[in-house]
Amino acid sequence: MMLNYNRQKNWTNNFGNQQSPIMINTHDLKPKKGNLAFKPKSHYVLIREVDELTTIKLTGRGKANIFGRPFDFKQVHFHSQSEHVIDGKPAAMEVHLVHENKIGQLAVVALMVNEGPANPEFQQIIDRFESGMIDWVDFDITNWVSSESKGFHYLGSLTTPPLQEGVEWIVINNTMLTVDGDQLNWFRSKFHKDYRALQPRNGRVIEWYK
Amino acid sequence: MMLNYNRQKNWTNNFGNQQSPIMINTHDLKPKKGNLAFKPKSHYVLIREVDELTTIKLTGRGKANIFGRPFDFKQVHFHSQSEHVIDGKPAAMEVHLVHENKIGQLAVVALMVNEGPANPEFQQIIDRFESGMIDWVDFDITNWVSSESKGFHYLGSLTTPPLQEGVEWIVINNTMLTVDGDQLNWFRSKFHKDYRALQPRNGRVIEWYK
Repeated sequence: MMLNYNRQKNWTNNFGNQQSPIMINTHDLKPKKGNLAFKPKSHYVLIREVDELTTIKLTGRGKANIFGRPFDFKQVHFHSQSEHVIDGKPAAMEVHLVHENKIGQLAVVALMVNEGPANPEFQQIIDRFESGMIDWVDFDITNWVSSESKGFHYLGSLTTPPLQEGVEWIVINNTMLTVDGDQLNWFRSKFHKDYRALQPRNGRVIEWYK
Repeated sequence: MMLNYNRQKNWTNNFGNQQSPIMINTHDLKPKKGNLAFKPKSHYVLIREVDELTTIKLTGRGKANIFGRPFDFKQVHFHSQSEHVIDGKPAAMEVHLVHENKIGQLAVVALMVNEGPANPEFQQIIDRFESGMIDWVDFDITNWVSSESKGFHYLGSLTTPPLQEGVEWIVINNTMLTVDGDQLNWFRSKFHKDYRALQPRNGRVIEWYK
């Protein structure tokens, strides 16, 4: 079809084929050596804890380098069960660390969380939520992310409206991050289902750092 | 509004507020020192010349580093008049060098072209088009881009359908690149109007490397 520049108003914004979350099947991927290039350059300061009704969001400040570019940490929030599903198995929770660079590019670092020992930082977040505290906390992100992150890198979208595309995903699955049954039950009874349905991959490249 | 995870199918993909091209008013911007970080790492090989009916597209190969990340050159095409408008004044033409990285992120390097002396490479492109030649050409991109690129960096979209967002724009306005009146007339009589209407900036950051 030839483009008609005199009928530009009829060009539809035919988006929607690079959405998140996705199912990741490692059998379909070639593993790469090396680590996901997510390097926090500071502690992350959590400034304000917000009840988003479907999750807890903590706005904050921090610096990171992501695949060669400087990004600012903006906020962290939680989903349960996990939104991304790796090899058919959802994790108990998924933490989303949302980063933005100078021109507004978004990079979300997703941490897969399994059920296991209680997480002390997550307990602080629960306790603050229950007590209505909103003052800042200095949060050592290295407690949650090791220096050698393994997992997946692909291009997708926000998982809540406006579902904006062009979002870079760094899905880390070697975090050793756990929450215990009480923490999980607290979150789930408070927020119920808060994970988006899986979206089609549509031939997108997924880099796997194993 | 509280998100309803049981009605996910009704979430609209409410895109369309980061579209390209845009009007760039330097009076609204704070200049930065330094150069646009676009660094070709090879000659660009032009493989195949395609009549797109609204423009000429040349598919190709090449390597570049763009703001700290490796990208592959994919294709170059032309618009006349320019799509981006700087300080109210469109340029005679705009060259789009389309780059893509490993996970499919797109970066378009736009070269603003003024009317002046004839451009020998563009003349080769015209001659090849007229004679129907489709064999490859080794194209020294450094003839078109200086080592110290000045201009603008912002986040936008493709300017033709599917109008995909998340596209990184590097708009270079110090190219010294010109085409003469004959070349311009040839292109315009062949392809007529092929520039998209200006899109709202919607508060986006535009970095200006002056």
